[in-house]
Amino acid sequence: MRCVLISSSLDLRDYFGAELARIAPRVEVVDHAGGAADVRLALAWHPPDDAFERYPDLQAVCSIAAGVDNIVACPSLPPSVDVVRVVDPGQGQMMSGFIAWHAIGHQRGFAAFSAQQRDRIWQRRAQRRAKDVPVGILGNGEIGRRVAVDLAHLGFPVMSWSRTAKAISSASRSFHGPAGLAMMVSETEVLVNLLPLTPETRNILNGDLFGRMRRGGYLIQVGRGEHLVEAELLAALDSGQLAGAALDVFATEPLPAAHPFWRHPRIAITPHDASDVSISAVVTTLATTADAIRAGRRPPHAIDRARGY
Amino acid sequence: MRCVLISSSLDLRDYFGAELARIAPRVEVVDHAGGAADVRLALAWHPPDDAFERYPDLQAVCSIAAGVDNIVACPSLPPSVDVVRVVDPGQGQMMSGFIAWHAIGHQRGFAAFSAQQRDRIWQRRAQRRAKDVPVGILGNGEIGRRVAVDLAHLGFPVMSWSRTAKAISSASRSFHGPAGLAMMVSETEVLVNLLPLTPETRNILNGDLFGRMRRGGYLIQVGRGEHLVEAELLAALDSGQLAGAALDVFATEPLPAAHPFWRHPRIAITPHDASDVSISAVVTTLATTADAIRAGRRPPHAIDRARGY
Ligand SMILES: NC(=O)c1ccc[n+]([C@@H]2O[C@H](COP(=O)([O-])OP(=O)(O)OC[C@H]3O[C@@H](n4cnc5c(N)ncnc54)[C@H](OP(=O)(O)O)[C@@H]3O)[C@@H](O)[C@H]2O)c1
Ligand SMILES: NC(=O)c1ccc[n+]([C@@H]2O[C@H](COP(=O)([O-])OP(=O)(O)OC[C@H]3O[C@@H](n4cnc5c(N)ncnc54)[C@H](OP(=O)(O)O)[C@@H]3O)[C@@H](O)[C@H]2O)c1
Repeated sequence: MRCVLISSSLDLRDYFGAELARIAPRVEVVDHAGGAADVRLALAWHPPDDAFERYPDLQAVCSIAAGVDNIVACPSLPPSVDVVRVVDPGQGQMMSGFIAWHAIGHQRGFAAFSAQQRDRIWQRRAQRRAKDVPVGILGNGEIGRRVAVDLAHLGFPVMSWSRTAKAISSASRSFHGPAGLAMMVSETEVLVNLLPLTPETRNILNGDLFGRMRRGGYLIQVGRGEHLVEAELLAALDSGQLAGAALDVFATEPLPAAHPFWRHPRIAITPHDASDVSISAVVTTLATTADAIRAGRRPPHAIDRARGY
Repeated sequence: MRCVLISSSLDLRDYFGAELARIAPRVEVVDHAGGAADVRLALAWHPPDDAFERYPDLQAVCSIAAGVDNIVACPSLPPSVDVVRVVDPGQGQMMSGFIAWHAIGHQRGFAAFSAQQRDRIWQRRAQRRAKDVPVGILGNGEIGRRVAVDLAHLGFPVMSWSRTAKAISSASRSFHGPAGLAMMVSETEVLVNLLPLTPETRNILNGDLFGRMRRGGYLIQVGRGEHLVEAELLAALDSGQLAGAALDVFATEPLPAAHPFWRHPRIAITPHDASDVSISAVVTTLATTADAIRAGRRPPHAIDRARGY
């Protein structure tokens, strides 16, 4: 099946080319700068606005990641085309290690230890147990679920928030909908954002939400930059409502050199590097999507276009 | 039962006094600077050399921690007196969070991320998965066992070393004895020390051991300072054999201000603060020990004096 690679920000052939050879001829990568009939599949990341005008036969677009927001946002994407995301269990595990690191760092005060070391100060700290540091996770999907299980295993009381109600789980107490959000956040000390970016979730990390958290809380932001109202995070840090924040995603990436986040003493920045899917998971997803199209089935992990994730 | 508090380094009454009231009169704390007959129990930490000469009726000494090395080392302690350690599951969990933090920090290169932030550099790193970072744990006892389970849950391949052979476990591959040590360490990238200090384990963290590890390995030293040959750690860091070390315990504590460890860029220091037992666990141990003495039984968690742990 013919497939084009479309990105305004990455050289997808460079990233995935070697691995794509593995799935030929199930998927045959074609180069059509000008567009073409007979192209039924695309692999895309930050497609240009007019990208999909050129492919009248397109049936599915695969993302190269768990998130699809930059594809869904493309004005030329017809509503009938399936958008497929990558689900990679290894990514969930990587993410939970990343989040555990920040949560434990906050719980134990590792930043204070390193400041003490700089000044050669030998000073023990009150040892807070994980059970006294409740974690609230926004998002209870493929990744959020795994993170909940792993943090619970480390002793944190875990709460999870989603759009729809969930069955009872031993790892976390679950909440859903707007009322559930307020309830969960009022008990939360470490807030983890693992939501997809949709019209409903944009700007969800704002001063009102931070103000409902336990004072001295901590934000771990690994969703999308547009979830966060940046000025309101800075205000919550200044007032002491939040003790600190770990930010992996930003409205503008790379984060501009002049941005105040870089030098904030209580913000830890990573370059959208919390947890990638593997190259092989991307390529396998593409092959599975091609097989489904050929068989006239809906591709696995196609998102619901109406809700946007 | 009469009990004395003996320490050259801590005011034990200050630490434990309030909680000790809870177990009176099962345990009655008496103040006998001069010693006395009828004292059958002691709570001790770094006792002075002649501490136990004064208590001819002493039957057991309780530590205030998991380790007992500073009590066993006391020259005036008769060989017939039981030495009791504290076992507190909450301590194991706290320790595994502490170790997970350092292990993930090494796996993901968080030190490099923070250096990049200082210089406002947006640069993604190769994402190493936990499964590619084998962890070897020296000690497979109360704490080491818990750490093994938790690190395995986070995806690290875990190996454990002990004196005696262990049954097969799903969390870690186990090794024992001197030959087992060499085998395990040759596959180890992150080496965790959770051994008790005994004549056999003193100086076990030395240049020869570091040299057997994977190049670019990482040491997490939470046992006792005397396990480590300090100069040989510095040499292993200088040569690049070790990429870094987290040290929580030291031959001299507090670590002297002039010690080169403080300023080493690849050593992370914490002030013997990895994981305490709780005050209530100490006091409960004392009460249980008193009950056992009264009943003519061996106290639970009394160590084997011949092997020293
Ligand atoms: N920084 C990184 O490196 C990185 C890596 C991977 C992923 N991510 C981010 O993490 C996100 C989640 O990934 P995933 O694979 O776990 O997604 P997923 O499986 O689609 O799960 C999404 C979760 O969010 C919930 N949700 C969506 N809209 C909501 C709303 N309006 N109110 C309440 N809950 C809502 C969903 O609720 P329901 O269960 O009720 O549907 C679901 O539980 C991605 O979209 C991406 O933004 C970031
Ligand atoms: N830094 C801190 O805050 C902190 C806190 C708590 C504990 N610690 C340290 O951690 C140590 C371990 O505590 P624990 O409660 O887990 O002790 P434990 O239950 O007595 O376990 C000790 C383990 O070490 C093994 N071992 C002892 N001597 C050995 C030898 N010569 N060769 C090989 N293995 C040997 C034992 O082997 P077998 O199973 O074969 O007997 C056992 O697996 C404490 O003694 C203390 O030094 C430090």
